[in-house]
Amino acid sequence: MTFILPAIADLHDEALAGRLQHKIDHKTKPLGSLGALEVLALRIGLILGSETPELVAPQMVICAGDHGLARRGVSAYPSDVSWQMVENFLAGGAAVTVLARQHGLGLTVVDCGVAHDFAPRAGLQIRKIAHGTADCSAGPAMSREQCEQALAHGVELVKGLPGNALLLGEMGIGNTSPASLILARLGGLDIADCTGAGTGLDQIGIARKTDILREVLLRHDGVTEPLDVLAAMGGFEIATMTGAVLQAAAERRVIVVDGFITCAAVLVAARLVPAVLQRCVFAHRSGERGHSLMLAQLEARPLLDLGLRLGEGSGAALAWPLLPSACAILREMASFESAGVSNRDAA
Amino acid sequence: MTFILPAIADLHDEALAGRLQHKIDHKTKPLGSLGALEVLALRIGLILGSETPELVAPQMVICAGDHGLARRGVSAYPSDVSWQMVENFLAGGAAVTVLARQHGLGLTVVDCGVAHDFAPRAGLQIRKIAHGTADCSAGPAMSREQCEQALAHGVELVKGLPGNALLLGEMGIGNTSPASLILARLGGLDIADCTGAGTGLDQIGIARKTDILREVLLRHDGVTEPLDVLAAMGGFEIATMTGAVLQAAAERRVIVVDGFITCAAVLVAARLVPAVLQRCVFAHRSGERGHSLMLAQLEARPLLDLGLRLGEGSGAALAWPLLPSACAILREMASFESAGVSNRDAA
Repeated sequence: MTFILPAIADLHDEALAGRLQHKIDHKTKPLGSLGALEVLALRIGLILGSETPELVAPQMVICAGDHGLARRGVSAYPSDVSWQMVENFLAGGAAVTVLARQHGLGLTVVDCGVAHDFAPRAGLQIRKIAHGTADCSAGPAMSREQCEQALAHGVELVKGLPGNALLLGEMGIGNTSPASLILARLGGLDIADCTGAGTGLDQIGIARKTDILREVLLRHDGVTEPLDVLAAMGGFEIATMTGAVLQAAAERRVIVVDGFITCAAVLVAARLVPAVLQRCVFAHRSGERGHSLMLAQLEARPLLDLGLRLGEGSGAALAWPLLPSACAILREMASFESAGVSNRDAA
Repeated sequence: MTFILPAIADLHDEALAGRLQHKIDHKTKPLGSLGALEVLALRIGLILGSETPELVAPQMVICAGDHGLARRGVSAYPSDVSWQMVENFLAGGAAVTVLARQHGLGLTVVDCGVAHDFAPRAGLQIRKIAHGTADCSAGPAMSREQCEQALAHGVELVKGLPGNALLLGEMGIGNTSPASLILARLGGLDIADCTGAGTGLDQIGIARKTDILREVLLRHDGVTEPLDVLAAMGGFEIATMTGAVLQAAAERRVIVVDGFITCAAVLVAARLVPAVLQRCVFAHRSGERGHSLMLAQLEARPLLDLGLRLGEGSGAALAWPLLPSACAILREMASFESAGVSNRDAA
């Protein structure tokens, strides 16, 4: 198969942007006084192509996969935690499920390549490529064909979802490693600056992880095209998210991006089609080393900065209420004129 | 009259804190990976004295007042905007009312001393001390008796509210000036570091405002006791909020503090009874110059940093959903044991 990139239009629309900014500027508040919320309102208005945007049936999608590299000891947790956490998502006990319930988000868990066979049930989609990737320190994490299959899964997944907003999260023991590798290679950065504690390595553990990742990069020296990098050093859940991001962008959904690993999927998608970034809202700056560099690569200004480093989509869920707030400001706030409030310098 | 400080107990409870931290640490997530949300969960648990805290009937209270000093030209907006915005709050068109509606917050607007007579109606409480404060560059903003009356109003107000959480906001053209003055005097800081653009002064306007505020401080040289400072250079809405904070603290309500002006009320309250700070959740770091210094005085780590500078309680409303999130994490998330998930280093 050959993966065909969804058609993603440039959303640049100076007329609509002008109308939105005018509307924001004439609300009953000092100019610019809602700060980042105004930027968010403008962005959502442009994505949804409306001066009165409304977010409908937001969908949290959690992509899960296992990593052959985890056998090298790059995580503080055993790989079994990946499938155990999928069960926890489905049982409603994980942070992201608690938060999704609080905010009325639809929730879909996707087995993109967990090293475990799940019993089918509501809320779980089986889109398994294999029982975990291969160890990318010994060879490519996946074949190019597997990578394109995972991308296609992401596309199909989004096509089947209702609503106009997609929140992306992930689960996969060891998956800060592929995210660091993708960032280092696509961003041209030193792996030491891209490598952090993940689920909680100490300094010695981080040094060891960095050495292993440096070795992986050397093993895949010369691999620089986004999809080649994804196949060589990525993960099934990251590839599936990349496909989901591309399709959501094509459908002009608002894409709420969680933390470090989700950002890696967006980075690959953006290197393929930069206009996907027009559709993204970055939920938070995480406590994971490398995430700030990742956000810089994406020219992203995240909404929250709470020192989160859990993944799962938990940061996306925590930031979510700010999006309907931004829409409500556009739709429901009075203007100086409509409210009969004197504007500045009217004294 | 003499204002009697409500009795505010020290919430320090090492046993409960230990149980809460243990519970947080055994949830299915890497240790500390929910960052500031974990700190928030611990705080709310301690305030409400529960390992399974639940926020009930949260109340947004917006205190409004006018300022004699505004006649000196310290604001970009005319004083009439204070009463016009009160009407806008009640009509549902202001930012804070839009956000309160989104989050199901009760909303009470309090006329603490607006230079306007309002028709009584639902959602409005008339607790007017006078039609605006006196010009504090010519004498005290209010008498000690007026100040104590406003404090008592705040106490009564909170006594009449349902629920266990209070969100505080304010409205009053010119009221960044008293907030800057209170910060400078109680914090022992240079007024230039405490003075900002307010609703949108330019550099020349800020320089002019700073000169006027320096003159006010000189006029009230030697006034250093918290309630004397409040009377000399404060505002009716700030004094009412100070009373509300003290009573809410006495009742062990969770107090969600908005921006610069609300923080000034909390600063006065905390100088009277430091334990009020145990009950406070600081919603955001605002774009107003001086707010970071104010937060430092309060040893506060705010939840959001969105460049807001609107006041009204808009930042408190935007941050609000994080509080029920923190409670839901404590109440609903599974533990490693209950979910059958392997903990770290169990490989």
